[in-house]
Amino acid sequence: MIKREKIKSLLNTTDFNREVSVMGWVKTFRNNQFIALNDGSCMGNLQIVVDFNNTAEELLKRITTGAAIAIKGQLVESLGKGQRVEVKATSVEILGDSDPEKFPLQPKKHSLEFLREIAHLRFRTNTFNAVFKIRHALAFAVHQFYNERGFVYMHTPVITASDAEGAGEMFRVTTLDFDQTPRTEDGKVDFSEDFFGRATNLTVSGQLEGELAAMAFGEIYTFGPTFRAENSNTTRHLAEFWMIEPEVAFADLEDNMQLAEDMMKYLISYAREHCREELEFLNNRLLEEEKNKPQQERSELSLLEKLDFCVNNDFQRLTYTEAIAILKSSKPNQKKQFKYIINEWGADLQSEHERYLVEKHFKKPVILTDYPADIKSFYMRQNEPDSEGRRTVAAMDVLFPGIGEMIGGSQREERMDRLTQRMDELNIPQEELWWYLDTRRFGTAPHSGFGLGFERLILFVTGMTNIRDVIAFPRFPKNAEF
Amino acid sequence: MIKREKIKSLLNTTDFNREVSVMGWVKTFRNNQFIALNDGSCMGNLQIVVDFNNTAEELLKRITTGAAIAIKGQLVESLGKGQRVEVKATSVEILGDSDPEKFPLQPKKHSLEFLREIAHLRFRTNTFNAVFKIRHALAFAVHQFYNERGFVYMHTPVITASDAEGAGEMFRVTTLDFDQTPRTEDGKVDFSEDFFGRATNLTVSGQLEGELAAMAFGEIYTFGPTFRAENSNTTRHLAEFWMIEPEVAFADLEDNMQLAEDMMKYLISYAREHCREELEFLNNRLLEEEKNKPQQERSELSLLEKLDFCVNNDFQRLTYTEAIAILKSSKPNQKKQFKYIINEWGADLQSEHERYLVEKHFKKPVILTDYPADIKSFYMRQNEPDSEGRRTVAAMDVLFPGIGEMIGGSQREERMDRLTQRMDELNIPQEELWWYLDTRRFGTAPHSGFGLGFERLILFVTGMTNIRDVIAFPRFPKNAEF
Repeated sequence: MIKREKIKSLLNTTDFNREVSVMGWVKTFRNNQFIALNDGSCMGNLQIVVDFNNTAEELLKRITTGAAIAIKGQLVESLGKGQRVEVKATSVEILGDSDPEKFPLQPKKHSLEFLREIAHLRFRTNTFNAVFKIRHALAFAVHQFYNERGFVYMHTPVITASDAEGAGEMFRVTTLDFDQTPRTEDGKVDFSEDFFGRATNLTVSGQLEGELAAMAFGEIYTFGPTFRAENSNTTRHLAEFWMIEPEVAFADLEDNMQLAEDMMKYLISYAREHCREELEFLNNRLLEEEKNKPQQERSELSLLEKLDFCVNNDFQRLTYTEAIAILKSSKPNQKKQFKYIINEWGADLQSEHERYLVEKHFKKPVILTDYPADIKSFYMRQNEPDSEGRRTVAAMDVLFPGIGEMIGGSQREERMDRLTQRMDELNIPQEELWWYLDTRRFGTAPHSGFGLGFERLILFVTGMTNIRDVIAFPRFPKNAEF
Repeated sequence: MIKREKIKSLLNTTDFNREVSVMGWVKTFRNNQFIALNDGSCMGNLQIVVDFNNTAEELLKRITTGAAIAIKGQLVESLGKGQRVEVKATSVEILGDSDPEKFPLQPKKHSLEFLREIAHLRFRTNTFNAVFKIRHALAFAVHQFYNERGFVYMHTPVITASDAEGAGEMFRVTTLDFDQTPRTEDGKVDFSEDFFGRATNLTVSGQLEGELAAMAFGEIYTFGPTFRAENSNTTRHLAEFWMIEPEVAFADLEDNMQLAEDMMKYLISYAREHCREELEFLNNRLLEEEKNKPQQERSELSLLEKLDFCVNNDFQRLTYTEAIAILKSSKPNQKKQFKYIINEWGADLQSEHERYLVEKHFKKPVILTDYPADIKSFYMRQNEPDSEGRRTVAAMDVLFPGIGEMIGGSQREERMDRLTQRMDELNIPQEELWWYLDTRRFGTAPHSGFGLGFERLILFVTGMTNIRDVIAFPRFPKNAEF
């Protein structure tokens, strides 16, 4: 028995004129003779040449798009156009048929909307092969980046009893019955009867637990699923998504910005180096799409140019206060083209403002820092009031072209008195976060961290525009299919 | 300003007699002179020598166990016993105090039970530093192993509407209100009003979705959290744990066993190579513990010997039927020392039987295959009935000393008629798994996979005995603290 070889390695070999065994799915079958075979190892197909004179009619009929087949044959240099190698089949075996009347993936262009309906099959298209290979590569690159730097990978809990972070609406996790709900004497739901003896939710962030670990290991990161129960039906939001959250002891906001920039450049460079074929394909896909757009809507940079641009340029760093000044005097603000007009300091920035700064004003990734305390979380480090007495925190948002906020982070408030005062202002009960406060009680130290939305990173690197197209089985309002 | 250096690198440097900056937490402070400083980068402490004659009394008092401090000073070769290098401090700064009356981690041996209560601080002990460094290393090794082999890392959904796998009790995920639960006309809970428009749960396995991806990419793996709402208060069960699930197209049970064995050897070897210091420490920790046990209860092999043994020996492969024969005629079965006596073919194996096979009979890891169909899942490939007409499936369990089942897997039933017949027998509705069945409809092919419980792997490699000690913040009945 000959061992099966992967098409990826056969397409790159020069070891011709030998017997090989390949298996995969039929992409196309032309002239009863040429099979384009794909096994998922790469986007490229291997050409199989069938000796149709000596192959049963019945068998030939079953070589249809989507069928799984096993081929044995001679690997030879190809004389035809479009491929370097091909296999002259000596044996064709049907592993699994695919009824051409019913198989939804015909060899033609399908809309992304249609493919979303058949997310279990869309992996077999070139576009999604490329997207998920890049997703894989970026996930690996994340681990490699942090491993090389001595960070400890932490699995922070998915089920959490803490709802103090206030990052968004949460999903309840329960084993209680809606029909026979245990009640306390005063008629409230008795969560002491629930599985964990208290009300629990799906986490919105591993940060608070990550801080605990950073205050022991020095440098940690998380990479896990996080959840938002927000009724957002947009191309940018998911109910379930993956987040990367590094946390570093003895690091201030400067260190934090540097880590974020280093990481982004590392990840994008890694994809450029390890996913050439996939990025080339997606680059061309976007160029084709652009052709259908009016001139002024076309991107100035191609996908590959955009990636290189981010790697080769320093990210622009400025404060929120500086950004507000730029935005206030900007053309779209003066001409009231923004949906939300920037009138005064303290306004929360919308995606349109972030994108103006990144895409029009600076034309590169931007790191905004030192936001008003009132629009940021309780755990962010409080700056001294500025010359006009305004309160800001040592927060940072990293903004990317086409995406807006890619990363949000901050230096954390390590001073117990400042932290508890802020919690009191926001009515966050100290008892619930006793363990968080303990890190300030016992050997507190400056520390910083941030969160990177993994799917937003993939959107940026692949040039895809809907976040539902960069995660295998997206979860969003009214959809938990597959 | 001098850049902070990590203690791990200072302990290994020979570049002496230079100014350095270090930060960390005080482990001990002896004779008002010698600080043992740890920054989490390694288990080892750096000795700081304080010039107590020229340091304020007030400051010296604040150098307490657990305090965070910043040191500047001269790195020199140490003349003292027990360390190669030390830092002669020129400046000591207290970053965060630690009240010695209140700090729970005193420089003495604490019980694991006590440390579980303060899981947010236990990372600062040597034992948990070692355990979580090894956990990190093993997680990275998993990714590296599969990345090197061309597997695609898939993030399968955590929230799922499918409860067909039957792997165990599930947690409900919901945004419905217990007090104002929407009801259908016939009084049932109206899950169409729930966030996802249907009832949803936390996943028990990513396998079914993993199969979808394997049938496109050829080789994939998952590495994510999975959940069981079982009321198991044991040292082996968690409500939330991490699982690694590879799935390979065109692979049979033989290939599956080989992959599992290769992976386990790779992971253990990786830890042996990259976590020498940590494993050495845990090895000695266990040897110390063993000293308190009576001779006959002591392990034959030390932790390190056990790890090497698994790397250097082939796993024993045998069928369930062969195992039953061995167990039936075994001493503990004949002498009725097993809690569950093995009387006949068809019995489900308990941990005591698995451990007998591994620890007493074969004395090495064992792969059991071809279990009775009735005690295994619907998706496992049906073998032809044996000579006595008994129905088995191409399942495999990998059993490890001290752990029992480390891995469970199977070749999958790729034949549509066999699969749907089995689903009917078990009353699993086909409509719910239309997407799963589609892979059998369109280009089905033999494929196989397995699941490795990540925490069980860490138990084995670290020699820890309670699974709550190898995950940062364990989730189990009545506990979701931190």
